[in-house]
Amino acid sequence: MSIRLGANRYGKSESRVVRIVRDTARHEIHDLNVSSWLRGDFEDAHVAGDQSAVLPTDSQKNTAFAYAKEHGVSSIEDYALALGRRLLEASPAATGALTRVEEYAWDRISVGDDARGHDHAFVRRGGDVRTTEVDRSRDSVQVVSGLTDLIVLKSTGSQFQGFLKDDYTTLPETDDRILATALTATWRWSGVDVDWNSTYAEVRATLLETFATTYSRALQETLWAMGRAVLESQPGIAEISFSAPNKHHLLVDLSPFGVANDGEVFIAADRPYGLIEATVTRDDE
Amino acid sequence: MSIRLGANRYGKSESRVVRIVRDTARHEIHDLNVSSWLRGDFEDAHVAGDQSAVLPTDSQKNTAFAYAKEHGVSSIEDYALALGRRLLEASPAATGALTRVEEYAWDRISVGDDARGHDHAFVRRGGDVRTTEVDRSRDSVQVVSGLTDLIVLKSTGSQFQGFLKDDYTTLPETDDRILATALTATWRWSGVDVDWNSTYAEVRATLLETFATTYSRALQETLWAMGRAVLESQPGIAEISFSAPNKHHLLVDLSPFGVANDGEVFIAADRPYGLIEATVTRDDE
Amino acid sequence: MSIRLGANRYGKSESRVVRIVRDTARHEIHDLNVSSWLRGDFEDAHVAGDQSAVLPTDSQKNTAFAYAKEHGVSSIEDYALALGRRLLEASPAATGALTRVEEYAWDRISVGDDARGHDHAFVRRGGDVRTTEVDRSRDSVQVVSGLTDLIVLKSTGSQFQGFLKDDYTTLPETDDRILATALTATWRWSGVDVDWNSTYAEVRATLLETFATTYSRALQETLWAMGRAVLESQPGIAEISFSAPNKHHLLVDLSPFGVANDGEVFIAADRPYGLIEATVTRDDE
Amino acid sequence: MSIRLGANRYGKSESRVVRIVRDTARHEIHDLNVSSWLRGDFEDAHVAGDQSAVLPTDSQKNTAFAYAKEHGVSSIEDYALALGRRLLEASPAATGALTRVEEYAWDRISVGDDARGHDHAFVRRGGDVRTTEVDRSRDSVQVVSGLTDLIVLKSTGSQFQGFLKDDYTTLPETDDRILATALTATWRWSGVDVDWNSTYAEVRATLLETFATTYSRALQETLWAMGRAVLESQPGIAEISFSAPNKHHLLVDLSPFGVANDGEVFIAADRPYGLIEATVTRDDE
Repeated sequence: MSIRLGANRYGKSESRVVRIVRDTARHEIHDLNVSSWLRGDFEDAHVAGDQSAVLPTDSQKNTAFAYAKEHGVSSIEDYALALGRRLLEASPAATGALTRVEEYAWDRISVGDDARGHDHAFVRRGGDVRTTEVDRSRDSVQVVSGLTDLIVLKSTGSQFQGFLKDDYTTLPETDDRILATALTATWRWSGVDVDWNSTYAEVRATLLETFATTYSRALQETLWAMGRAVLESQPGIAEISFSAPNKHHLLVDLSPFGVANDGEVFIAADRPYGLIEATVTRDDE
Repeated sequence: MSIRLGANRYGKSESRVVRIVRDTARHEIHDLNVSSWLRGDFEDAHVAGDQSAVLPTDSQKNTAFAYAKEHGVSSIEDYALALGRRLLEASPAATGALTRVEEYAWDRISVGDDARGHDHAFVRRGGDVRTTEVDRSRDSVQVVSGLTDLIVLKSTGSQFQGFLKDDYTTLPETDDRILATALTATWRWSGVDVDWNSTYAEVRATLLETFATTYSRALQETLWAMGRAVLESQPGIAEISFSAPNKHHLLVDLSPFGVANDGEVFIAADRPYGLIEATVTRDDE
Repeated sequence: MSIRLGANRYGKSESRVVRIVRDTARHEIHDLNVSSWLRGDFEDAHVAGDQSAVLPTDSQKNTAFAYAKEHGVSSIEDYALALGRRLLEASPAATGALTRVEEYAWDRISVGDDARGHDHAFVRRGGDVRTTEVDRSRDSVQVVSGLTDLIVLKSTGSQFQGFLKDDYTTLPETDDRILATALTATWRWSGVDVDWNSTYAEVRATLLETFATTYSRALQETLWAMGRAVLESQPGIAEISFSAPNKHHLLVDLSPFGVANDGEVFIAADRPYGLIEATVTRDDE
Repeated sequence: MSIRLGANRYGKSESRVVRIVRDTARHEIHDLNVSSWLRGDFEDAHVAGDQSAVLPTDSQKNTAFAYAKEHGVSSIEDYALALGRRLLEASPAATGALTRVEEYAWDRISVGDDARGHDHAFVRRGGDVRTTEVDRSRDSVQVVSGLTDLIVLKSTGSQFQGFLKDDYTTLPETDDRILATALTATWRWSGVDVDWNSTYAEVRATLLETFATTYSRALQETLWAMGRAVLESQPGIAEISFSAPNKHHLLVDLSPFGVANDGEVFIAADRPYGLIEATVTRDDE
């Protein structure tokens, strides 16, 4: 019996790259959080302390900043594809590179009646964050687009009934409740010939619209409906995965005070929360 | 020399009150974080362990939830005014009640071409949070409205020059930099006869527009300009205060890679950050 | 009616200064979070955009790092006293300087049976954080020492009874509950001729021991007891203030499952929480 | 081409279970954060909205609280094993149950010279958190023990040299630096006949002692050394995995102020950080 190195990877996480495009007086902003990892044959670095095959994480960071200018950020997917390609080129011992990018959205500040917004003053939009993960090996590439922390809520049109009961079940059935979640969704593309920005907007709109218009018999059913709607409308997407905390809103008992509460006053609970995770996929995957 | 009780107050913090208005099929949502404190003669509770003058924090919480229905939430200021009045009524030993409310904004989810948005499905807006603090005593009341975490950025139109230098000064002067902050602003009203919702929208728009259109010779000057613009446009506001972290965006040196960087690639730093705080007030205050 | 600048201050927040003392092979570590502010006549910086009186926050940061070496960190109070003195010297327009320092504690890693611990390998202790705030004007100085996030819990020896009831009171009286808080305490010294490190350890021990050994008829009474014990044992302390969230532990109803629960199983709630704040002071203050 | 449900699971996350053992006057406390998931054939819940096979997450939560009393918490591993077994029994459609538990450590408060500490008053230790994940299927079980957020630092005895350079490499080689990380480690056991508490303490001590006493030519080598030491000393452990952010401490340039800095003053950086992940395993795994 002997001991050996198993799976390993290393990289630089959370470089906060801000790219201002100022070729004209009308600036644009790309506000990114960039992480990258290399994997491959790095056994000597671990076992023998020999770093000769290790491209420093500091160099990975430098490349992330330089590429924001050299390659540009037409979309986070395009930028991550280029960054991963470069990291693999620069690291002969690596068999793969994973690049993860988050993008924080900004809006132009409105000034007076000018619908175009200000040229170089911005307000951060808040809300959900756009994400991508590009996984490159020497002979393949896989792009996953996504979003995280899309907080949505339905104040009616949601039930939870007919579930399994055991000795520890006290939950009453309900035909009307608040359904709320902070959605993380990631969708894997079949290829890379994609208009990343327009499809992102389309998928996000489909997710929101399906959430809004589907009667929910459980968060599971809602995730399925959202996933199916995305796959039906986006032939380039092979698979979509969800992680959806069920953010419980508990009806407050106001009867001790002689106050009726027909679905009007809730306490938003922090913990615990349900956590529903599901993937919707094409049959040929 | 003896020892005595000094200033003291107690209350319930961060009740997450969610109020759904569902009188018609078109629901509305008020998503609040409510805190309240009572102050007054509570010496016996501390020194003698006698709780007979202490209205439990649990009762303060119950009142917050009940009042979301009984009084309603036409605005957070109006709700806080009512809640504070009730708490003072219920607590004879109290000389004052402070009520603080934060409100998280939600938008209706867009469905198809219907510009009105969905009746009962919402997406949380993210970004800045609206706030109020209402301080009531037995014979007076003071309302402060505000917002927090309004993150704004100018990609040009900002300098920092001509500052004082000492032996520890290494900062170069600059005539073009990124100026960014996560603004907290609180404005105190002279009275309570105010349209809280419309003025909130007006002040927020004034802050944004002034930030965008004012050339900045320092964050201090920008705060002054924003404060003056608010006081000039809102005669009911006595005073406005700002707390503004200077969120540093450091130009990245790309010259080792032969890449020019004329204000295009920055690293957004977490810590340390400048912190500028200022109040703008009317002379008669 | 005209508009003018009111109270204002500016500085650099949260410089993460790590000082290694390595004069011998047995290293020491001081792990600090340093913030400073200057206040005074900075009207021109705001109103006229003239920065000639403004020592940059960047210089304040540089001083914090340089003083960790030049002056050293025998205690955070001593370091903050020196830093504030320097900032006032360097800034003629300032009338006052406030310096705030937090210190994160580290323990030496134990190796084998050597009770002394390793010379240069450390593990962060976690738990409560030591703090100080030194407020200097041109002719006076005030030192406040403290700690934050000291999380303590009593599993019995706590009641809450005999409190005021109103129409919104549903809380049952209890003669046995969990009492838990995450204590923030700050104590103001009458002078500066203090052994900062030994008194810090003494005050912390007094707080803990008093919490443990005092029967609690309310968190208010416990704060009073802790404050009195500190003032009685430390003649140099003029005043001590507490901010203590009542971290509710709710007894879980296990009766539906036929399981008794005599104070054995609780859910630790996040929000809302009670918040009790009190100052204990000497009569001559 | 059709669309189908892929991998899915659901459960209740972060139930904050606090168990007081009070069979004698000397209480014990187990402070837990409990999460569980069920996986299996839940297609009808998603696709048809039929919840008849779904044990509510609320029931999973109830079981977590009830089992803290009924089964007890002799160790988090033992508790998680029992909880997972029960959830599988209660859910015929499930093929597997994953249970994750974190435990927050508390110390007895010291009173006077009594080395035993107080009977029922505790102070939260802070620092690293003990973890376990138990994955049960119908015919197998796998126990992973671990810890997270063990923050360690060496103020010397660490180098980084001889690494690969590319066009984006600017990092200087160093033969003396601070090495610091916030370690997450998880170790998988070959079986379940383990003394969970004593081995936990042993593994934690081995990790710390190896970190302290191993000269580091890279964080990778340090992880390898820690992993090998654990596997060599614990024959029941099949594999150990690490996730270790390289918490950069950057030497501050004090030369502009005429101050030498030979490894004495650093800035602790928040982001970006290196992230090194590695598994050390037995050859027969």
